[in-house]
Amino acid sequence: MAPPSPKHLTGDKAAIDSFIDSFDTFLFDCDGVLWSGDHVFDGVPETLALLRSKGKRTIFVTNNSTKSRQEYARKLESLGIPSEADDVFGSSYSAAVYISRILKLPPAKNKVFVIGEAGVEAELAAEDVPFLGGSDEAFRRDMTPDDFRGIADGSLLDPHVGVVLCGLDFHINYLKLAHALHYLRRGALFLATNLDSTLPMHHDLFIGAGSVLAPLANATGQRPLELGKPSQAMMDAIEGRFSLHRSRTCMIGDRLDTDIKFAIDGKLGGTLHVQTGVNKKEDWQRSDAVAVPSFYADKLSDLLLAK
Amino acid sequence: MAPPSPKHLTGDKAAIDSFIDSFDTFLFDCDGVLWSGDHVFDGVPETLALLRSKGKRTIFVTNNSTKSRQEYARKLESLGIPSEADDVFGSSYSAAVYISRILKLPPAKNKVFVIGEAGVEAELAAEDVPFLGGSDEAFRRDMTPDDFRGIADGSLLDPHVGVVLCGLDFHINYLKLAHALHYLRRGALFLATNLDSTLPMHHDLFIGAGSVLAPLANATGQRPLELGKPSQAMMDAIEGRFSLHRSRTCMIGDRLDTDIKFAIDGKLGGTLHVQTGVNKKEDWQRSDAVAVPSFYADKLSDLLLAK
Repeated sequence: MAPPSPKHLTGDKAAIDSFIDSFDTFLFDCDGVLWSGDHVFDGVPETLALLRSKGKRTIFVTNNSTKSRQEYARKLESLGIPSEADDVFGSSYSAAVYISRILKLPPAKNKVFVIGEAGVEAELAAEDVPFLGGSDEAFRRDMTPDDFRGIADGSLLDPHVGVVLCGLDFHINYLKLAHALHYLRRGALFLATNLDSTLPMHHDLFIGAGSVLAPLANATGQRPLELGKPSQAMMDAIEGRFSLHRSRTCMIGDRLDTDIKFAIDGKLGGTLHVQTGVNKKEDWQRSDAVAVPSFYADKLSDLLLAK
Repeated sequence: MAPPSPKHLTGDKAAIDSFIDSFDTFLFDCDGVLWSGDHVFDGVPETLALLRSKGKRTIFVTNNSTKSRQEYARKLESLGIPSEADDVFGSSYSAAVYISRILKLPPAKNKVFVIGEAGVEAELAAEDVPFLGGSDEAFRRDMTPDDFRGIADGSLLDPHVGVVLCGLDFHINYLKLAHALHYLRRGALFLATNLDSTLPMHHDLFIGAGSVLAPLANATGQRPLELGKPSQAMMDAIEGRFSLHRSRTCMIGDRLDTDIKFAIDGKLGGTLHVQTGVNKKEDWQRSDAVAVPSFYADKLSDLLLAK
């Protein structure tokens, strides 16, 4: 049986009213839905305000691991969407919660070697998870002959590292990769905040978190456990954190392989695909589409017709 | 039909004499055959001298892209094996020859963006191929917001780049990867000196050339054309360069997936597997072995029995 065709909401007030009435909670992907880079789309702050005025809960779910929830809330605020850190669920937070509350590492192996930026570190610190690497200047330098020797013989490695956690790292280098590789070769768990291969910026694509960690996957033959969208570890963590009813929750996103798949795999009540980001409706109209949404709109602010 | 069992040469003078008589040219892998790191194995210089005294041609075939042929010859010399650059065939040289003599790039697209060290640059320069990136200090720095903007809009990219060539790079960073990604997205050819996923050093493994380029392969969905072992592009180049007769040529190596496969795919007269490097005889005794040699010895200097 073919999946039901997505319902087009743009310009259809009755359909929009019915759509909004069907859900209590809306999960928003951010980049490509609310904004592109630092440019918020017209009418987005008003759309969020409208949904909140109708008593809907709005949660921002992002795979961006470079910012902490606090920093993300500040960005939302600065773009006209009043928010608190508790309204944000990022892949760094998801990973930190997984490490602290699910893994329950033994004290002798409870440290995390981080490939990533300050956002990952802030979330690990908030969960009291000890870590090294990350944005530490001591790792932002060239590899020396002593590094090769000391990493190979283990004298430069911390014996308490039990996890290698990889996120997007704009300061990736051979020294960090060498440390991470050797922790993995000594049995550390391989985790990733997310596996997005590319990072959309300036209407083009750059190297994403899933590509930053590719040297480690290639050298070890291991694939990391992913803790961002579409991983259901993230959905489970969101459900636990916000006590939401999945059938009364709708995911709004622009990417089929992360946002829409994430919500369908998680059996949410609905999915809304907007045309302002990476994927377009042509992508779910293909017979081999990775995921097909239940609703679509040209842009998020089309929902303002419900006013 | 099962492949014939490899003949064990160690301690068998008649078999060794017959083996040496069967070939005019010996191709040597270096690391794991002649030396490990900077430690030359006992008897290796004498074995090379013996083969040369019998009129055999000795050629050193390496996937190490960080050294030029000149630098490699100096390393051989320093370890007691008198050599000239012309005795060496490295993956950087293979790539430079492929670009200059096979690709014949149009003048408007004749520049190479290099991920790699000085060895790649020296070989490109020797073939008069213009290049940028590589060891240039201008690319050894953090990515800035202006870099993101200028790379995305193309203003920071050289319009004459037609090839991205990746080798082992101990100074890999986000800035170089971002440039390479955008040249590839604009249609540059994707070449690799070699695809070794790991680099053996200090009796352990580090990140190899094939893993350094993994972010680009992951972000583009493209696999580069490989110009080192086991690529037959390298075998064709060696045959052309040295006018060798394949049936009278033997490859001596320690790795099945590069050295031995390289020689079997290239229909050389013989292959000798030594037990002093990455793979052991147990690896070709498995039913799913990637390649099975025709001869094996415990170590290269076992051939000295032919004296």
